[in-house]
Amino acid sequence: MSILDPPHTVLTVGARLFDDALAAQGVETTAVDWRPPPPGTAGALATIAGDPRAAEANRVAVERMASARPEVVGIITAADAFGIGGTQFLHAGPPITWDRASGPLRGAIIGGLLFEGLTATAEAAEGLGPSVELQPCHHHRAVGPMAGVITPSMPVFELHDTVNGTTAYSTLNEGLGKVLRYGAYGPEVIDRLRWMRDVLAPVLGAALARMGPYDVRAMIAQGLQMGDEGHNRNRAGTSLFLREVVGELVEVGAPPSDLSAVVRFIAGNDHFVLNLVMPCAKAAADAARDVAGSSMVVAMARNGTDFGIQLSGTGDRWFTAPAQTPKGLTFPGFDDDDVNPDIGDSTITETYGIGGMAMACAPAIVRFVGGSVAEAVAKTMSAYEITFTESPHLQMPTLDFRGTPTGIDAARVVRTGIVPPVNTGMAGRVAGTGQVGAGLVEPPMDCFVQAALALAESVPVPPSPGWQ
Amino acid sequence: MSILDPPHTVLTVGARLFDDALAAQGVETTAVDWRPPPPGTAGALATIAGDPRAAEANRVAVERMASARPEVVGIITAADAFGIGGTQFLHAGPPITWDRASGPLRGAIIGGLLFEGLTATAEAAEGLGPSVELQPCHHHRAVGPMAGVITPSMPVFELHDTVNGTTAYSTLNEGLGKVLRYGAYGPEVIDRLRWMRDVLAPVLGAALARMGPYDVRAMIAQGLQMGDEGHNRNRAGTSLFLREVVGELVEVGAPPSDLSAVVRFIAGNDHFVLNLVMPCAKAAADAARDVAGSSMVVAMARNGTDFGIQLSGTGDRWFTAPAQTPKGLTFPGFDDDDVNPDIGDSTITETYGIGGMAMACAPAIVRFVGGSVAEAVAKTMSAYEITFTESPHLQMPTLDFRGTPTGIDAARVVRTGIVPPVNTGMAGRVAGTGQVGAGLVEPPMDCFVQAALALAESVPVPPSPGWQ
Repeated sequence: MSILDPPHTVLTVGARLFDDALAAQGVETTAVDWRPPPPGTAGALATIAGDPRAAEANRVAVERMASARPEVVGIITAADAFGIGGTQFLHAGPPITWDRASGPLRGAIIGGLLFEGLTATAEAAEGLGPSVELQPCHHHRAVGPMAGVITPSMPVFELHDTVNGTTAYSTLNEGLGKVLRYGAYGPEVIDRLRWMRDVLAPVLGAALARMGPYDVRAMIAQGLQMGDEGHNRNRAGTSLFLREVVGELVEVGAPPSDLSAVVRFIAGNDHFVLNLVMPCAKAAADAARDVAGSSMVVAMARNGTDFGIQLSGTGDRWFTAPAQTPKGLTFPGFDDDDVNPDIGDSTITETYGIGGMAMACAPAIVRFVGGSVAEAVAKTMSAYEITFTESPHLQMPTLDFRGTPTGIDAARVVRTGIVPPVNTGMAGRVAGTGQVGAGLVEPPMDCFVQAALALAESVPVPPSPGWQ
Repeated sequence: MSILDPPHTVLTVGARLFDDALAAQGVETTAVDWRPPPPGTAGALATIAGDPRAAEANRVAVERMASARPEVVGIITAADAFGIGGTQFLHAGPPITWDRASGPLRGAIIGGLLFEGLTATAEAAEGLGPSVELQPCHHHRAVGPMAGVITPSMPVFELHDTVNGTTAYSTLNEGLGKVLRYGAYGPEVIDRLRWMRDVLAPVLGAALARMGPYDVRAMIAQGLQMGDEGHNRNRAGTSLFLREVVGELVEVGAPPSDLSAVVRFIAGNDHFVLNLVMPCAKAAADAARDVAGSSMVVAMARNGTDFGIQLSGTGDRWFTAPAQTPKGLTFPGFDDDDVNPDIGDSTITETYGIGGMAMACAPAIVRFVGGSVAEAVAKTMSAYEITFTESPHLQMPTLDFRGTPTGIDAARVVRTGIVPPVNTGMAGRVAGTGQVGAGLVEPPMDCFVQAALALAESVPVPPSPGWQ
């Protein structure tokens, strides 16, 4: 049999041109998805690989993140947590100004102005928009889902990690549909936010105080055993949290109608604990910051215009690129054109190794974002290619209790061309719309390229060998 | 290379004698677990296979069971549900008398006498034991986990299936540890049962009345998406049920201390909804009864001494054999010798196609019963070999949303030698002990052999061909 005789299976690596040409001739091919590192990165990757500090730096960074055990310690106001007031608002993602803000972020700022009573109408609020002082949640040890707008009088969960000494914050989850974080600002949105501030926060805060510190990592670990992945599916976690806190809730002495409303609000929102999972991941990732020489990703976040990442070894510097638009399933009445580019701090879950990184343990989510079970497993398997280790605490039963892929290595992302898998809610492009669907999205490779180049620049030049 | 030259892999089928002999000579073998049908069954299997009614009968039986959608409609007393009083007690499994009862059943009867206030001491109760009128729960459209003792003043859940018009009952779950159903009867057991009757039942009953009918099949379906298998793991189902009912619970106007105790009791018991899952399965299985010619199993139940099954085509007749002893993990302080033979009506879950039959969707349970994930998947795959269909309503995400194996065919069990996989709690052998562990157990093949023989006898003899 000659090598030219059919049938053969041809393995094609990298560029699809050869694969396509063979396929056009009826030849069976198996295409291996491999790309050479982007032009201009080879030197930086070599420098990073040759940094004598790297191995220990990455070991320290990932160990800190993986060992974190953040607990909810209470609910306080954003003003107290962040020292903000007036029109000082926080937002998701890397820094941005009103003029570059997308529809959902502008919508949430408008809603925030109305919620704070700083103006009476949406039109007036829109006029005030450019004067709002915007700062990223991440600059205040906080994370906010979607638009992530936090205004001074909002209540926020406070989490503390006694292992590493970090603290993190997030708002309370509003539920789905027309909600501020998706850019909606109608009266029902504002009324709900005020009820959350005036009733939910004090009642739940009193229950949390009675209960004592609540171990969020343990809740996530249980949730992963029960079909959650911690980003777009938190049904199990929410159910477990409610079971844990409900005995305290009924004992805080709240007026019966308030108690009933609080219990029904939490019980009715499958995403309630997303706003505990996110600050848990934030507290863990922050513990890994500022290890010189580490290429580990400590933040991935989107403001609806830009996607930004930060590395442990490059301090507070953001590496940004235009946010991509998620692909998935839109709700009835919406289509792909209605979807805003990727938005929110919720990619802190993927930074921590759950969410899209752990989709293998949440087969039920794949239908929600328009995929298959095999695709979900493939996403998680790809994540192992770009991470330093496997979590000793967060395990996936469907992968025979393998630990979640933990500690994204920006250098390996650049070298392999594999970006961290992310699943996400989709916000309407137009301010005021709300959620229009859910899907998958790819972080832009350029963020990782820039980060690798910057990290390489920080590697000390070895002293030249002397002759004396 | 001669056929006599090593190495070879030898496939051995059936009896292990040949396999063992080869293995002893260092030959690598792969043993296929196949057994010929037990002696004396070939004729009966041929008769059943040749019954012209069989295909339609089995189609009708399995369709009724699979279509059932039982709902909780309320809580009533056992006296009202079953018309029992005084020392008329129900028990799990096929019929049995005190003299043949095992330790845990005797312990539960002693506890029942104390609970009803029919005697003041355990010693006196033991003396009264032989005079208690025992009847199987199954004879009263009821099911009880483990000892399954139901006494007249106990509260029971009432379920109704509007699709097929069946009704089923079960007690309220006591939690784990020292509890009546495991044969414990100490003061804490009796006090808890009285609190359940006097506080839990009226408060929860009032909440259920406010809520309206509760769809148990939908809860099971959700639980299977969240790592439950419905028999030994009901953590998700319990969490979801509590989320559903808690809004009503806080609004029934119960005294705060009672509300608190009720909420904490349900929230603190991962097995609370086992006693909803079981009567749901019972109502579904009962819908499939009495279809002439059907070899479908409609009950599997154990009384701690005997394992018994019933077929759709053989009416109320029990086919029994000695119950086997479960193998698994015992709690600290106990070992295999402390384990009582298999006990309880909870095998109604396997009859319905969940529990051990659906272990593939509950990887987390396999560690609890001492197995591996691969074994759990293998158990479910084996169950497909002996069932008529796959549930259109109950799906397993880990098997790519395949429906649970539904409708056990007693004839196929006999023909293949595969018995339905069962997982179970393990009761202490000595009356008063309580739970000592959890594990796996095999229903005795002889039950299925007897049932097949009886079904074959019921097949009408075809008229002999005439000559006129």
